Amino acid sequence: MPHRLQGPVRIVGTGLLGTSIGLGLTARGVDVQLADASPSQAALAADYGAGRLATADDATPQLIVVAVPPDVTAEVVASELARFPQAIVTDVASVKQLPLTQLRELGADVSRYLGSHPMAGKEQSGALAGTGDLFFGRPWVIASHDDISYSSGSLIDDLILDLGAVPIEMSVVEHDRAVALVSHVPQLASTLVASLLQEAPFESLRLAGGGLRDVTRVAGSDPALWMQILSANAEAVTEVLKQLRDSLDGVIEALDTAGEPGSLRAIAGALVEGNQGVARLPGKHGTHTKFARTLVRVDDRPGQLARLFTDIGDAGVNLEDVRIEHAEGAQFGVAEVLVALDAELELEAALTELGWKVLG
Amino acid sequence: MPHRLQGPVRIVGTGLLGTSIGLGLTARGVDVQLADASPSQAALAADYGAGRLATADDATPQLIVVAVPPDVTAEVVASELARFPQAIVTDVASVKQLPLTQLRELGADVSRYLGSHPMAGKEQSGALAGTGDLFFGRPWVIASHDDISYSSGSLIDDLILDLGAVPIEMSVVEHDRAVALVSHVPQLASTLVASLLQEAPFESLRLAGGGLRDVTRVAGSDPALWMQILSANAEAVTEVLKQLRDSLDGVIEALDTAGEPGSLRAIAGALVEGNQGVARLPGKHGTHTKFARTLVRVDDRPGQLARLFTDIGDAGVNLEDVRIEHAEGAQFGVAEVLVALDAELELEAALTELGWKVLG
Repeated sequence: MPHRLQGPVRIVGTGLLGTSIGLGLTARGVDVQLADASPSQAALAADYGAGRLATADDATPQLIVVAVPPDVTAEVVASELARFPQAIVTDVASVKQLPLTQLRELGADVSRYLGSHPMAGKEQSGALAGTGDLFFGRPWVIASHDDISYSSGSLIDDLILDLGAVPIEMSVVEHDRAVALVSHVPQLASTLVASLLQEAPFESLRLAGGGLRDVTRVAGSDPALWMQILSANAEAVTEVLKQLRDSLDGVIEALDTAGEPGSLRAIAGALVEGNQGVARLPGKHGTHTKFARTLVRVDDRPGQLARLFTDIGDAGVNLEDVRIEHAEGAQFGVAEVLVALDAELELEAALTELGWKVLG
Repeated sequence: MPHRLQGPVRIVGTGLLGTSIGLGLTARGVDVQLADASPSQAALAADYGAGRLATADDATPQLIVVAVPPDVTAEVVASELARFPQAIVTDVASVKQLPLTQLRELGADVSRYLGSHPMAGKEQSGALAGTGDLFFGRPWVIASHDDISYSSGSLIDDLILDLGAVPIEMSVVEHDRAVALVSHVPQLASTLVASLLQEAPFESLRLAGGGLRDVTRVAGSDPALWMQILSANAEAVTEVLKQLRDSLDGVIEALDTAGEPGSLRAIAGALVEGNQGVARLPGKHGTHTKFARTLVRVDDRPGQLARLFTDIGDAGVNLEDVRIEHAEGAQFGVAEVLVALDAELELEAALTELGWKVLG
C-alpha cells in the first residue's frame, strides 16, 4: 500500500497505541524505529512486526510519536524534542491542554510539537493487543496551538491518513471540552448509575432491561486508566459535571413538588431536551435516518444466528444494525434487527415463512 | 396450546399491552372480552384478533386486566371492581404504590385487586403494534399487598405463565424502588447526559464513540409516557436521584481538588464502585461469564452480515452477542462479535482465512 510519510518514524512507547501505529506504518512500508522505557516491551512489539528496535546509529527520524501513559507524556515529549532538534513530535494522549502547558513550563520547543488524539481503542491493552487497523475509519484529532507551523501540521495529517483514520483539527481547549462532553462525563454518569446497583436487592436487578445495560456498559472500564484521564482533564470535566448537576437539581426539584402546578411541565421539558440532544448525534452515513426494528426469537444453539442472518440476506434485505438480548435464565434470546423502514414488512413476512418466531 | 386460565378474561384498554395480552390469550384458546374508552380502538383490537368486543350479555369474567394509561388506572380498576363483584382485577401500570393508595382512598375492595407489571414493551404503541409474544421470557412483577388473598394471586400467576412470562413477586414498595433504580433513574441519567449535547459544537459530536451512544440511547424515549411514569413514582425516583447527586458531588469535589492529596484515590474509588455495580447485573444464563470480543470489518452491502454469521456458524462457534458500529460518513461498519473465551483464537483464524478483516 502506498504511503505519504517519508519516514523514518520513531515510536516511543509500545503499548496498544504505539504498537498499533507501528504495525500500520510498517505494513505501508514506512521505516519504524521502536523505543520503550521497558526494553522487553519494545522487543515484543518488534517481534510482533511493529518496526525495528531503535539504535544509537539510527537515521534522524522525520516524525516522533510519543505513546506513553498520560502522566509522563510531557516529560517524554520534551526529552524527544531536545534529543532530535530536526524532528516533529506528536503524542496520542487523550487530553491535550495539560501536556502543552507542561511542555511550555519545561521550556520545550513547542514549534515542533503538535499533540493529537486518535479516537480508537479496545478493551485489551499492551503490544499483543496491537493491530494496524485499529484506527481505520476512526476520527483522529489534531490539537492545534499558536506556536506550531503549517508544515508540521501536514506531517501529522500524513500519519493519520496513512493509518486510514479521519483527521479533525481543533484547538487544545476545544479538544479537551469536546472529550469531556462526549466521553469523560458520559463515562462518569455511567459509573455513578452503576454504583447505585452495589447495594440493590438481587430481585430488583432481575428487572433490569436493555436500557440499564446500555447506560451502565462503559462503567466496566479500567479504573486506573480513567483515573489518569479524568484528573488530567479535571477542569473541563468539572465544568460539564456542574451543568449536569444543575439539570439534575432541576429534575429533583420538579419531582419533589410532583402534583404542584408546573412540575409536570418541568419533567416533560427535561425529557424533551434529552430527545433533542440525542438527535444531534451523527448517525450512520452522517444522517439521522430512522430504522424499523424487528424482534426475532433465537434459540441458544450454535448456528442459529448464522441461519437467521443468512435468511435475512436471502430475503435481499440489508441489515442496518443488530443486537442480541438474552432473558435471564432462559435458553433463548431475542435478536433485535434494524432494517430500512420500507423493508420491514417484507422481512417479517419472509422470516415468518421460513419458520422464525417474529416477536414484533 | 394448553392454558391455565379458565376465563373469560376481560381486558380494559386496548393499546399495545392490552392488545398483546388479548392476542396471547386468544391464541391459547382463552375467551377474551375487549373494552376501551374509545370503541373504535376496541374494534380495531378485535379485528386484529385480540378477542371479541365486550357486550352487556357477557358471562361474568374470571379475571379483568386493566391496561390504561397510569393516570387513570386507579379510577378504572375501582369501577371494574364495583361492576364485577366476583372478579379478580389486575393492572399493568409501571408504578404500583400510587394506584393501590388511590384505590384505598376510593374505598375499593382491594382484596380482589392485585397489581402487576410486565417488564416488556416496544418503541411503537397502539393496538397495531400488539403481538401475543410480547411477554415471552420477560419478567412480570406481581406487586403483592396485605389485603389480597392467596387464590387471587394464583390467578395472576396463571395469566403470566399463559403469556410465557416469568412471574416475580415483590411488595408494591419494593417494586417501585426497584424500577426507580433499574429503569427510571437510568432513563433520567441518559436524558440529562443527552441534554448536554444540545449546545455542543458539531465538531465535538463527531468525536462521539460507542460509549456516548450507549449511555444516551434511551434518551430518545417518549417524553409524554415518561412524564407520567416519573411523576407517578416521584418519591422512589427522588430518593435514588439524591443518592446519585451525592456521589456526583463527591466526584466534582475530587476533581475540583485534583492534584491535592486524596483526590486521585477518591476518583479511583468512584470508578471501582462503578465496576462493582455493573458486575452485579445478571448476565446471560444468570452468570457473570466474560466473553472474548472480536472486531470484524463489514462492508455496507446487503448480505455481508449474513455471510459473516454464516462463516462464524460454519466455524462451529456459538455467538454470544453481536453489535454493529458504523463510523460516521464511512461506507463500512465494524461488527463486534462476542464469543466464549476459548473460542476466540479459533474464530479469528477461521475468519481471517475466509478473507474477513479482523480488526482485533
